[in-house]
Amino acid sequence: MTQRPDTPLLDTIHVPADIRKLDKGQLPQLCNELRDEVISAVSVTGGHLGAGLGVVELTVAIHYVFDTPSDKLVWDVGHQCYPHKVVTGRRDRIRSLRMGGGLSGFTKRSESEYDPFGAAHSSTSISAALGFAIASKLDGADRRAIAVIGDGAATAGMAFEAMNNAADAGSRLVVILNDNDMSIAPPVGSLRNALARLVSSGKYLTPRKFAAKLASKMPRPLANAAERFEEYARGMVTGGTLFEELGFYYVGPVDGHDITSLVEILENVRDSDHGPMLIHAVTQKGKGYAPAESSADKYHGVVKFDVVTGKQDKGPGGGPPAYQKVFADALIAEANHDDKIVAITAAMPGGTGLDLFEKAHPTRMFDVGIAEQHAVTFAAGLAAEGYRPFCAIYSTFLQRAYDQVVHDVAIQNLPVRFAMDRAGLVGADGATHAGSFDLAYLCTLPNFVVMAAADEVELTHMVHTMALHDSGPIAVRYPRGNGRGLPMPVEPQRLEIGKGRVVREGKTVAILSLGTRLEEAEKAAEILEGMGLSTTVADLRFAKPLDEELIRKLLTTHEVAVTVEEAAVGGFGAHVLTLASDEGLIDAGLKLRTMRLPDKFQDQDSPQKQYDEAGLNAPHIVDTVLKALRRNSVGLENGVRA
Amino acid sequence: MTQRPDTPLLDTIHVPADIRKLDKGQLPQLCNELRDEVISAVSVTGGHLGAGLGVVELTVAIHYVFDTPSDKLVWDVGHQCYPHKVVTGRRDRIRSLRMGGGLSGFTKRSESEYDPFGAAHSSTSISAALGFAIASKLDGADRRAIAVIGDGAATAGMAFEAMNNAADAGSRLVVILNDNDMSIAPPVGSLRNALARLVSSGKYLTPRKFAAKLASKMPRPLANAAERFEEYARGMVTGGTLFEELGFYYVGPVDGHDITSLVEILENVRDSDHGPMLIHAVTQKGKGYAPAESSADKYHGVVKFDVVTGKQDKGPGGGPPAYQKVFADALIAEANHDDKIVAITAAMPGGTGLDLFEKAHPTRMFDVGIAEQHAVTFAAGLAAEGYRPFCAIYSTFLQRAYDQVVHDVAIQNLPVRFAMDRAGLVGADGATHAGSFDLAYLCTLPNFVVMAAADEVELTHMVHTMALHDSGPIAVRYPRGNGRGLPMPVEPQRLEIGKGRVVREGKTVAILSLGTRLEEAEKAAEILEGMGLSTTVADLRFAKPLDEELIRKLLTTHEVAVTVEEAAVGGFGAHVLTLASDEGLIDAGLKLRTMRLPDKFQDQDSPQKQYDEAGLNAPHIVDTVLKALRRNSVGLENGVRA
Repeated sequence: MTQRPDTPLLDTIHVPADIRKLDKGQLPQLCNELRDEVISAVSVTGGHLGAGLGVVELTVAIHYVFDTPSDKLVWDVGHQCYPHKVVTGRRDRIRSLRMGGGLSGFTKRSESEYDPFGAAHSSTSISAALGFAIASKLDGADRRAIAVIGDGAATAGMAFEAMNNAADAGSRLVVILNDNDMSIAPPVGSLRNALARLVSSGKYLTPRKFAAKLASKMPRPLANAAERFEEYARGMVTGGTLFEELGFYYVGPVDGHDITSLVEILENVRDSDHGPMLIHAVTQKGKGYAPAESSADKYHGVVKFDVVTGKQDKGPGGGPPAYQKVFADALIAEANHDDKIVAITAAMPGGTGLDLFEKAHPTRMFDVGIAEQHAVTFAAGLAAEGYRPFCAIYSTFLQRAYDQVVHDVAIQNLPVRFAMDRAGLVGADGATHAGSFDLAYLCTLPNFVVMAAADEVELTHMVHTMALHDSGPIAVRYPRGNGRGLPMPVEPQRLEIGKGRVVREGKTVAILSLGTRLEEAEKAAEILEGMGLSTTVADLRFAKPLDEELIRKLLTTHEVAVTVEEAAVGGFGAHVLTLASDEGLIDAGLKLRTMRLPDKFQDQDSPQKQYDEAGLNAPHIVDTVLKALRRNSVGLENGVRA
Repeated sequence: MTQRPDTPLLDTIHVPADIRKLDKGQLPQLCNELRDEVISAVSVTGGHLGAGLGVVELTVAIHYVFDTPSDKLVWDVGHQCYPHKVVTGRRDRIRSLRMGGGLSGFTKRSESEYDPFGAAHSSTSISAALGFAIASKLDGADRRAIAVIGDGAATAGMAFEAMNNAADAGSRLVVILNDNDMSIAPPVGSLRNALARLVSSGKYLTPRKFAAKLASKMPRPLANAAERFEEYARGMVTGGTLFEELGFYYVGPVDGHDITSLVEILENVRDSDHGPMLIHAVTQKGKGYAPAESSADKYHGVVKFDVVTGKQDKGPGGGPPAYQKVFADALIAEANHDDKIVAITAAMPGGTGLDLFEKAHPTRMFDVGIAEQHAVTFAAGLAAEGYRPFCAIYSTFLQRAYDQVVHDVAIQNLPVRFAMDRAGLVGADGATHAGSFDLAYLCTLPNFVVMAAADEVELTHMVHTMALHDSGPIAVRYPRGNGRGLPMPVEPQRLEIGKGRVVREGKTVAILSLGTRLEEAEKAAEILEGMGLSTTVADLRFAKPLDEELIRKLLTTHEVAVTVEEAAVGGFGAHVLTLASDEGLIDAGLKLRTMRLPDKFQDQDSPQKQYDEAGLNAPHIVDTVLKALRRNSVGLENGVRA
């Protein structure tokens, strides 16, 4: 148990209205105590730390100046919201962050009226805030909507789309650009350069300067040359023309850790009527906690740690490698002898393992920023020229490029390779990050080959298979976390497209596994054998095209068959059923069941508990088999029943 | 048969290399002849006319200056490519545009090496061109990639994402912004305002002025105040700082119909090494054809017409109303007595019928531009504040907002209403516009209600049902084209969620129809009755939640059951099979078949031929039933067999 920090002033704050009772002079102390409390809490829970520490002053200033929850505060991505949770009635549960039954690691509507819009994927905040602002306008009210968005998140197209529409909202919309020059990886692209130029122009805006700016009220659009001159002259002093071109009144740069100035500037913003405002606040990720400030990743995501030393409790180590490392090693090996292989990430070089690829092949790695749509079509362009692009994108984030997958890749049948990381359940990150839908949304597409890796050896084979597959799009899904610890092959195998493998031969029960539940399927087979039920286990490898021959054989030579996948309804099992129906295999009676993720969004919890909740562990498989055989579920001693 | 125009110079052009043999002085004549040929061709085929007429000079100039097909020319959206097709070896087939077996109405890789990247959805061109440019860079080559993108398409986020990454490509990337102030509807938003300011600054850039600009070479990023001053000074003269902030060297505005200047400026661009270039060309949609120029929609999409008068052959008229009109009327009626209803379109007010809604309720209609991602999350924000937003988005375009549908709507269970227009096959627009995948990608999501309208009366009921459904997201799919001509109800009904209806009672065969194939299902039932097979026809109405009670009853009381839907595999039929499997209905034998779209992308053709190819007409249903019953397919006289 870490010692709790001494927080006399914070102890008086239960809701934001309590902050508004303070003198401005007390706010620096409140910020210090809030920062200590967040460090203390995350030291026992783990989670996102650096981002929250960077917005302590912004959090206090926004709640001090604006009338939350009537005014709507939308945190982009939401992983910086821990200080916000502490001051919005959730301090008593802050040490349950990201745990089963505890607080979400992100903003969440069901948790608090102070979270008017949940987030976890980036770049949604301006669109949502614009919805709130327009609702306010339609109501004839003047409630403000405040979006706080990072400079990395601002590279995503939807942030641009929202900014392009912001003028409608008038002064009800306030966007705070939280510029910390450091999203998860260092941000990329021209937007970053433009921001850097603004900041390097040197002078932070003080309240006095800002007041002077506001006084020279300037309606838009500018009608004549004199006004244009004035606009550009203003641009030369304070920068910001990109945002001004997009219809915002730009204010900045502002020191995001100077709570006194922040409050005064936000008060000016609140009381102005210059249309939508963009405040460019410069902050430091990990601010105020020395170990975080001096760390390369600014303690973006941490496990439990010692507050005094900053040392993270990373466990004994030495276990099986993470799938991300296996993927990266496999891809590097392919690229070593194939100079057409290139790798693409959307701002996740570390998360996907492509940082390792970049070290090995620096000219062939492309981090396009938070821009999945562009990533996929860019890859399609490379593929059209004979390159072999691997897009490594988390399953949940590939949803953001679905139209590009359909329109630019599948319809044109271009050989773009998709490495769908973190497919299936993801533990502490919860529903927003689960990769549940990829099988449904990809297997419905013509031309696609869709694989799922059962373990790290299979992933290596599949990366090799993808490298050699030039005839159309191909995807592999693999989970978060570590492999099974299997011995790795010296040379990867090229798998035959659409062919599965039988890993255990039996006679009565057939378990058709796709992907990560194979280990549980094998355990279930052991249990069933112990009950006298001879069990076959197959790893189908391909969700599309299906191994029709193997499936036909398994369904017709066993008494009962069960499909198992770590994906939502409409995926592998549904396609097996469709095949069985198409071929009339079901006509004469077929005990076939499909096991899949439940039709609900599962909250964060330990992976094991999530699998139990989903009903995808060995006992559930056994239970499903026995129920299909109309036998009692005897002999089940561990695990939750389905 | 329309008389062909006299085109002596165009007759000598078979491929772009032939254009490059001409004197510059001949290019105006070539443009005139090319324009006449396009007008003549579209007068007999119908199709997109205005956009192509606006880029005749750009088409000729680009092919004259750049070394296509080695240099890669990517037309955004692709509907402006008819002049391009004429001069790239496809003139002999230009009068087969959009017909079955003929030329696609869009660019298409399989048609020509001069189409290096197909398109039909907007805003993909810069990403694809960047892929080509980077491939060229990796090859150590200096092939250029030229993207031509409209000002409307530039509002989409993915165009911004691509521009943010453009600097990498260096001078290999050339973006031509085709600013015609008129995409399909007038473009919206701040980007439009910024462009208008640039154009209204008055002076088109002449080659001489541009050469002077190039001479004052200016490396980026700008390092000191003097350079910043110079940049902004330049901004004052020529504008364009938004694009320059994004790392482009901005050139413009340029008169996009002055072929002589265009060629000289593109030659300068080709020979420069200032990094990625953006040429802002101002064009006129419908240019050079008086009836198009004077029409409100600039002849964006036309049917056959008389070249001399411009009169379009719109047929006798007076038939059943289009689904879009039915939708709009129904929504207007709801909004008349519910002031929380708002409507959102992504640049398709006319296509979706929401132009009618705007006339009735101007303050409650939001056209956000080509920005589906923003549209959906903006709607979610409005829903979070108690509004009842209807997002009317074509099924195929909703793919572009899939992550927003999952993350912002479904996970938060917000009552956003989705009107998925043009679901299913779409005829002449072909594979890129077909709305085939919505059932698969939506029914896999928890919390969603998904309906399909069988006819225009059903659509009216469903709009009413959606208006009253405040407990979570709800979607309806309905087709392109006209209704069945049914009498419209005086008052719409509120449908019970998850309940279908039986439209015909029988005993032996059950046809479970979802959506538009109901009429064919009824025809099939007639044929089957004639063969002595008593047939039930049900319209399930809901793909999610399924009417489990009705399905259970139909499957267990009939000898054979067939599901029919106008959607790809993984949708309604797959979910019915999953239910039958979950409940063990298949154990004792079940003759259940699913009819759906084939697992291929279907090219453009007449709707009837597309349905025949898909195997979704009455004879196919009959055939499927008979095969399941193991009876010969006797009595089938019309239609193609499955």
